[in-house]
Amino acid sequence: MQGLATIETDAVVIGAGPVGLWMVFQLGLQGIRAHVVDVLGEPGGQCIELYPDKPIYDIPGIARCTGRELTQRLLQQIAPFKPAFHLNQQVSEVLAQDDGRWRVTTSASHQAGQQFLTRTLFIAAGVGAFAPKELKLDGLTPLLGSQLFYRNAPPEATADKTVLIVGGEDAAVANAIALAADGPNPAKSVTLVHRRDVLQASAAALAQLATLRDAGKVKFLAGQVTGIHVTDGRLGSIELSTPEDQTVNLPVDTLLVCMGVSPKLGAIAQWGLAMARKQLTVDTASFATSAPGIYAVGDVNTYPGKRKLIVCGFHEATLAAFAAASYLNPQASGVLQYTTSSALLQQRLGVLADDTPA
Amino acid sequence: MQGLATIETDAVVIGAGPVGLWMVFQLGLQGIRAHVVDVLGEPGGQCIELYPDKPIYDIPGIARCTGRELTQRLLQQIAPFKPAFHLNQQVSEVLAQDDGRWRVTTSASHQAGQQFLTRTLFIAAGVGAFAPKELKLDGLTPLLGSQLFYRNAPPEATADKTVLIVGGEDAAVANAIALAADGPNPAKSVTLVHRRDVLQASAAALAQLATLRDAGKVKFLAGQVTGIHVTDGRLGSIELSTPEDQTVNLPVDTLLVCMGVSPKLGAIAQWGLAMARKQLTVDTASFATSAPGIYAVGDVNTYPGKRKLIVCGFHEATLAAFAAASYLNPQASGVLQYTTSSALLQQRLGVLADDTPA
Repeated sequence: MQGLATIETDAVVIGAGPVGLWMVFQLGLQGIRAHVVDVLGEPGGQCIELYPDKPIYDIPGIARCTGRELTQRLLQQIAPFKPAFHLNQQVSEVLAQDDGRWRVTTSASHQAGQQFLTRTLFIAAGVGAFAPKELKLDGLTPLLGSQLFYRNAPPEATADKTVLIVGGEDAAVANAIALAADGPNPAKSVTLVHRRDVLQASAAALAQLATLRDAGKVKFLAGQVTGIHVTDGRLGSIELSTPEDQTVNLPVDTLLVCMGVSPKLGAIAQWGLAMARKQLTVDTASFATSAPGIYAVGDVNTYPGKRKLIVCGFHEATLAAFAAASYLNPQASGVLQYTTSSALLQQRLGVLADDTPA
Repeated sequence: MQGLATIETDAVVIGAGPVGLWMVFQLGLQGIRAHVVDVLGEPGGQCIELYPDKPIYDIPGIARCTGRELTQRLLQQIAPFKPAFHLNQQVSEVLAQDDGRWRVTTSASHQAGQQFLTRTLFIAAGVGAFAPKELKLDGLTPLLGSQLFYRNAPPEATADKTVLIVGGEDAAVANAIALAADGPNPAKSVTLVHRRDVLQASAAALAQLATLRDAGKVKFLAGQVTGIHVTDGRLGSIELSTPEDQTVNLPVDTLLVCMGVSPKLGAIAQWGLAMARKQLTVDTASFATSAPGIYAVGDVNTYPGKRKLIVCGFHEATLAAFAAASYLNPQASGVLQYTTSSALLQQRLGVLADDTPA
């Protein structure tokens, strides 16, 4: 944990899905700027990870939008509040401090984690962090970060290397294309391995991959990885079992596993917050958890009547922001103001010049 | 009350503001078609009555829209569910029936009211029905519906008649234009009376009125109506006190009062539902009131943490629809389905052909 930079702030939001983004908006209206942590490499949460291109029909006032469009709309809407995003990071620890603040520590795969000292924390972690599905083989774990990577690998692990990508979905195809196409640091060779020759990706990506396969720049093999060969702590090759039950030995410098993701509540369950059926129990007046200053909104919480719907998360984040504003500043009036008529809110939104009398 | 048509239905929504419209949407997803009653002549509620052209900034995913735009968006979104609107009607009475249903009676100014026999009732009445501000003068009340009208008058009361319009806002100006401009049943004369010669309406409407005034088709007088002259039960003229303290006598067949509106909770307070501080108390798991089958959503309800925000009303209507679906059909599974993935919901929305296997 040494050498982590510490950020002192009023608010940290865990999760950059639609409800986490709306949390940022409502905090912004309250005059509170938020830091947002998400395990994914871009904002959007389930909307980006599970249905970026599928239509959603039940966002009020938006008859139809994809998960990606909803994310873009919300990012545009919260832009005036200039949230600080900390992506590719997972919150691993939340510890109470003597001064009432919370120390929030993140871990990240290719970079140093981050520490926050925050007065309020908003858990908008949805169904949990999307963790990559693991390739389970004896002896593989010690190679993580040197020769084994999930979802993406740093350039030094792929440049001029024999790279083997395992998986058949978007991320596997995208990595194969990115590493094989002409770039500044090309791999020596790129082999894509999937249990069968049916890949799930956009038509454009599949067409690009087909061109690269025809040009011999990406090799494809159907089969399952059944074993690895490690000598002196170094991975030398993997064993592939083909659909015809043959065993093929493939030399490899870097193994990049892209077998999809599955959500895991993970560390959240260890923070000592009251839970019911793997969800955080909250008070519906404030969406506060059992710990002072910590709120839970969206799919991660539970209360009588709870429905895991985005429209409900929007409400929960709204009331949590009011509760947090009052928690941070008990002297505040708490009087409801409307964006349609309040000069203060319009100033915060940047739609009214800051020098206009409030 | 005689001669009222009775509509038997599963659901009546009182109030066609944004939350009432979203109530229709969520009921539609549950397979329940709704009848909607509103005292105004068009859907939109406060959005249309109070801020049709002012921007709203806090609808999730819509960075900026006017009250009118939000209403149009919601009307488009609920169109697949074909709600039946009953406009210009106010619910006057709600009575429990022996079979568990509710008899809902409306009253209307220029038409027969309506009766509904409904299994569920959703009160989305906002801050109350927008009732026209009354012109208070001795002897005026008995003329209501014959020579006195609020907001609008039927053609037989204005065709070839000496019409006096009282008021200075949109509706007064719009009525003056409508009655003076060439049409099938023109008034004999149109006089607009307002306490001063400053009118509040759109630039286009004011320009049109100016043209009609120049052409002598609308007469304008500044002053306050201070008395009426009635002979044998018939209004003959009104007394106007000018800014110069002169009294002018104006002959009149029809008096059309357009002095704005103010919200009144009205009859709702008489239905025997549990209330706190003039609002309906609800259970936050279901947004049920104290009466079985009656729900309250939006600004009309109260519960711990309540904020009168549209985004909160959207959530409340959503949970009320789930609760009502279970109330109407206790055998239903209640399993949450998503519009992104459920063939059933997509069929109801009309985005999937009805013959697609569910």
